[in-house]
Amino acid sequence: MPDYKPGPYLEQIEFPKDLREKFDINQLSQVSDEVRNYIVDVISEIGNSHFGASLGVVELTVALHYVFNTPYDQLVWDVGHQAYGHKLLTGRRKIFHTNRLYGGMSGFPKRSESEYDTFGVGHSSTSISGALGMALASKYKNENDRQHIAVIGDGSMTAGLAFEGLNQAGFTNSNMLIVLNDNCMSIDPNVGALKEYLTDITTSHTYNKVKDDVWKLLGKVSKFGPNAQVIASKISHALKGTLLKQSNLFESFNLRYFGPVDGHDVVGLVNIMEDLKDIPGPKILHVLTKKGKGYKPAEEGNATKWHAPGVFNKETGEIIKVVPKSPQAPKFQEVFGHSIVELAEKNDKIMGVTPAMPSGCSLNIMMAAMPDRAFDVGIAEQHAVTFSAGLATQGMVPFCNIYSSFMQRAYDQVLHDVALQNLNVVFCLDRAGFVGADGATHHGAYDISFMRSIPNMVVSSPINEEELRNLMYTAQLKDQGPFTIRYPRGAGVMPQWKTPFKEIKVGTGKKLRAGEDMAFLTIGPIGNLTIQACDTLLEKGISAAHYDMRFVKPLDEALLHEVFSKYNKIITIEDGCVMGGMGSAILEFMADNQYTAHIQRLGIPDKYIQHGTQNQLYAECGYDVEGMIKAAEKMIQKDNNLTISK
Amino acid sequence: MPDYKPGPYLEQIEFPKDLREKFDINQLSQVSDEVRNYIVDVISEIGNSHFGASLGVVELTVALHYVFNTPYDQLVWDVGHQAYGHKLLTGRRKIFHTNRLYGGMSGFPKRSESEYDTFGVGHSSTSISGALGMALASKYKNENDRQHIAVIGDGSMTAGLAFEGLNQAGFTNSNMLIVLNDNCMSIDPNVGALKEYLTDITTSHTYNKVKDDVWKLLGKVSKFGPNAQVIASKISHALKGTLLKQSNLFESFNLRYFGPVDGHDVVGLVNIMEDLKDIPGPKILHVLTKKGKGYKPAEEGNATKWHAPGVFNKETGEIIKVVPKSPQAPKFQEVFGHSIVELAEKNDKIMGVTPAMPSGCSLNIMMAAMPDRAFDVGIAEQHAVTFSAGLATQGMVPFCNIYSSFMQRAYDQVLHDVALQNLNVVFCLDRAGFVGADGATHHGAYDISFMRSIPNMVVSSPINEEELRNLMYTAQLKDQGPFTIRYPRGAGVMPQWKTPFKEIKVGTGKKLRAGEDMAFLTIGPIGNLTIQACDTLLEKGISAAHYDMRFVKPLDEALLHEVFSKYNKIITIEDGCVMGGMGSAILEFMADNQYTAHIQRLGIPDKYIQHGTQNQLYAECGYDVEGMIKAAEKMIQKDNNLTISK
Repeated sequence: MPDYKPGPYLEQIEFPKDLREKFDINQLSQVSDEVRNYIVDVISEIGNSHFGASLGVVELTVALHYVFNTPYDQLVWDVGHQAYGHKLLTGRRKIFHTNRLYGGMSGFPKRSESEYDTFGVGHSSTSISGALGMALASKYKNENDRQHIAVIGDGSMTAGLAFEGLNQAGFTNSNMLIVLNDNCMSIDPNVGALKEYLTDITTSHTYNKVKDDVWKLLGKVSKFGPNAQVIASKISHALKGTLLKQSNLFESFNLRYFGPVDGHDVVGLVNIMEDLKDIPGPKILHVLTKKGKGYKPAEEGNATKWHAPGVFNKETGEIIKVVPKSPQAPKFQEVFGHSIVELAEKNDKIMGVTPAMPSGCSLNIMMAAMPDRAFDVGIAEQHAVTFSAGLATQGMVPFCNIYSSFMQRAYDQVLHDVALQNLNVVFCLDRAGFVGADGATHHGAYDISFMRSIPNMVVSSPINEEELRNLMYTAQLKDQGPFTIRYPRGAGVMPQWKTPFKEIKVGTGKKLRAGEDMAFLTIGPIGNLTIQACDTLLEKGISAAHYDMRFVKPLDEALLHEVFSKYNKIITIEDGCVMGGMGSAILEFMADNQYTAHIQRLGIPDKYIQHGTQNQLYAECGYDVEGMIKAAEKMIQKDNNLTISK
Repeated sequence: MPDYKPGPYLEQIEFPKDLREKFDINQLSQVSDEVRNYIVDVISEIGNSHFGASLGVVELTVALHYVFNTPYDQLVWDVGHQAYGHKLLTGRRKIFHTNRLYGGMSGFPKRSESEYDTFGVGHSSTSISGALGMALASKYKNENDRQHIAVIGDGSMTAGLAFEGLNQAGFTNSNMLIVLNDNCMSIDPNVGALKEYLTDITTSHTYNKVKDDVWKLLGKVSKFGPNAQVIASKISHALKGTLLKQSNLFESFNLRYFGPVDGHDVVGLVNIMEDLKDIPGPKILHVLTKKGKGYKPAEEGNATKWHAPGVFNKETGEIIKVVPKSPQAPKFQEVFGHSIVELAEKNDKIMGVTPAMPSGCSLNIMMAAMPDRAFDVGIAEQHAVTFSAGLATQGMVPFCNIYSSFMQRAYDQVLHDVALQNLNVVFCLDRAGFVGADGATHHGAYDISFMRSIPNMVVSSPINEEELRNLMYTAQLKDQGPFTIRYPRGAGVMPQWKTPFKEIKVGTGKKLRAGEDMAFLTIGPIGNLTIQACDTLLEKGISAAHYDMRFVKPLDEALLHEVFSKYNKIITIEDGCVMGGMGSAILEFMADNQYTAHIQRLGIPDKYIQHGTQNQLYAECGYDVEGMIKAAEKMIQKDNNLTISK
């Protein structure tokens, strides 16, 4: 294990019990500092991690584990990339340096990793619903002393799921505390009316302050003489209905609201949470924090940049980038970001929509260039899609860019609001396939399967940057109906990517290489590995053809007739689940056309795959270059043996 | 066309233009009465329709089309089963009697049916997002006079999508009016904190009333002398922040709030909406209505019953039920409702969860019998699933009952919160397959495809009532992980359904009939039609085997080896989409095991199927009894010809 030294207090803490038993309240500030320093020490060296969010909740984390009897009391972290401090205090300091590495600690809370991780997270806004389930189960079991705490950011509060949870939580008599961790950020700055509202109650007269002022005033009013008492009584009566019940968004949901309080005052946090423990029923504590708090470059710098900065020099705050020797291929994200602006300059119907990922997906380029045509709608995938449908009814062509795994949140909206009405919404599914270090919650494994079942839907994936540009161009060229373009996280293969736009006929694939012995059918950039595999196979005496299908739907039937007429050994490859994926679409074609061939489907198998680099995960699932070669060799050998034995 | 007589005013109205040009405001009350009477006249006779919701918004409908310049001004009805009045006023009076019949008028607004139907609806809570898209498109096009109106019920407001829409709406300067149609109902009575809140502001001191009272009081305060003025000024200052900005849930979202107003006072509605037209920016009008209004039996009776009463005697209010001659098989819904109570009596870990469909799915039986163990969480499918996950982490076994097409809303929660954590949540997917009259928005077509792609998930479907009970029993017997049981709307086949519970080994199918020439593989109750088809085929000299797969996942591999060893002509049948459905799972098995056979997949083809009876739709898609027979004959003939020609 590398030699990361915890401070003298942190060294004594293996589990929260140690924190509670060994330290008094006045030592918690130092404990917090040591937790923060440890995070900075490790993350600056290993990189590959989230950063700012965890720094922002160090004091909150220490206070929560100090006040509450975890793990009996149940703590649910929303999203979870802010839970590094929690991991350090719950038995995982010694594996912290393996964060997000293949076989190492998960970057998110995970039930299988620790009993302190009460609920596996990754996607946003699940904490209220999850904790409410726990709270009502406890109530049913008469565990009335048990506390249930959901810690949710203001960004996560914009997603509908959080409100659905509030609506039931406020209706129950459950023992539940919602901690609203308000830092005005998602990964990018938070947006929307709710954010404005939270800023309002924080910066202007706050709800509580006004309430206090009025009460104080009414208390003092008697000195103004008998008439004033009459006024006071009347006003008091009139106000009861609103001020007590209705003057706060959260109290509208029947949650008792407390705050806002300073989220970096660990003593203050401990005191108020001790008080809250004794107040029954659902309640919300509004805590103000700062992403990156306590590490100056992050605190004062760009919060989006410090969300996940990679390796950095912890003394200077310099983020260390490996400078490549030769020109590198751009990320698909950059190609998307620049290409949509190019297209929108020519087609005034194009609009851009992102649910809270403007910098992640690069729509920020269009948002800067054309602010009235590109929208960050907050963490709100469902709304992003239905809003896009609304735009499309007016003849607009929205490019709705959503990460593949987050699109799972908007499946009904795609089916019901876009495809059923055959509207020309272009879904750019970013982070399709393995995403790497974020792991099982974030892999874009299922989109081919769930999108291709939708009538009217085109499902495509480019093998490289040029094809991404051409698919984007094609999707807006005429009224194409719903059109999906999936592409992975990270770089493509073309340093000279800025090729002229060309239309691609919808439903046409491309023969990349002829061959004699067998054929590979691939979709998307994983096909670039197949190109390498074919080269090696040829050296080994196996002549493999390679077809880039380009469209999973509609399939290129002419091409497939050619393939099935010529080959009886076929391997399909996709960076997505094999259960119902492109390979299955090929099998459907084969069955419908009564071809017979030996088909093997490579892709993500029918289980959840954890974190690691993309290449490690391709290898694990047998569709890295070597996996492809082996699969081909095995198929040829097996079929030859079969032929011989027959 | 049947002879339904409109009243003298309604007769003159083909389109809203007629309403606006031919009538003055004082005649609108009679127009409303005539619209209402026409709805009662037609619906009482044809049945098969929604009812109470449309009666409740007659005045609102008339007022909206009177005030706004539809279809230029854009009106979006949420859900849409309340839009019958809208249909009568927008060119569809003469086809109204074909409502929800095969080939007839859709029960929901639908873009292809009328330019007045600006947004196709069916699922709840899409209207704010859809209308906001239209509004921002209009803004971009400088159509600044154009109005955009979303009409949404208080039940629909509980779904997260609505809040996601509010969050962006309040942040924009769009020309948008949200009409909150508050009748305290979903199909069942509405639940949750929001409903309580709406009741609060309606029945106690309302927001506006309190505001008015305080202002008035402060105005009068001067007569109490100079000290009182000081008080007034201080209070006034202190209140500004809260009362003006924050004392109302909707104003927290930066929407200007108006109301509540009487939704049955058509003149009042016209006046306030005329005023609102001139107020720029997003705003909300809170309208109080009563489901069933104006038809006494519905107004005074059980609103859930009158949601969709079927045929009734309009004079007496008697709902006309066809009394069967012999004992009938129960609905699958009833079997679910009674069986979960039976199981829960023995297993104290079982809980029940429904998102706003207690009477539809029959969880109301458990809610009455065990109120602390059965939850209606409101229209909130996402929350229903994540809440169930929370329950399951505590060792509970939640049966989460969600209609198949609404489960599309919670796909991510199933993947991310339940299956990834391998939690024992039992998903009872009601209304799986064709639902009949509700049509394209509501058919449960996709669940086999999207559920079987999820790792850890069991996907099953019973052929009859006994098997439903046994699958429910099996799902809670030990820690089974996520477990899906899909079953259709309507009756099964077993009048004597209350059979003793028996465990079914997970992943085992059942051979129902041996045969020589070919095999049918079916899943779910559609297999009962296959039983009939096999009988007829035998008479025609074709001996068909029939296997009830029972599980789509895991597949019964032993059974399939038997099938593929014996038959090379196989027809798969499912009441679900063939794209990625059970048939594709069989193809995957065949490919993985290198069998070859001629396989035809029957099921819902790759397009949206409209409304009709279930049998009409089975026939349209070729998997009614006749369709099955034809498919078998064709396959045998074709393969014989092939053999001969070879």
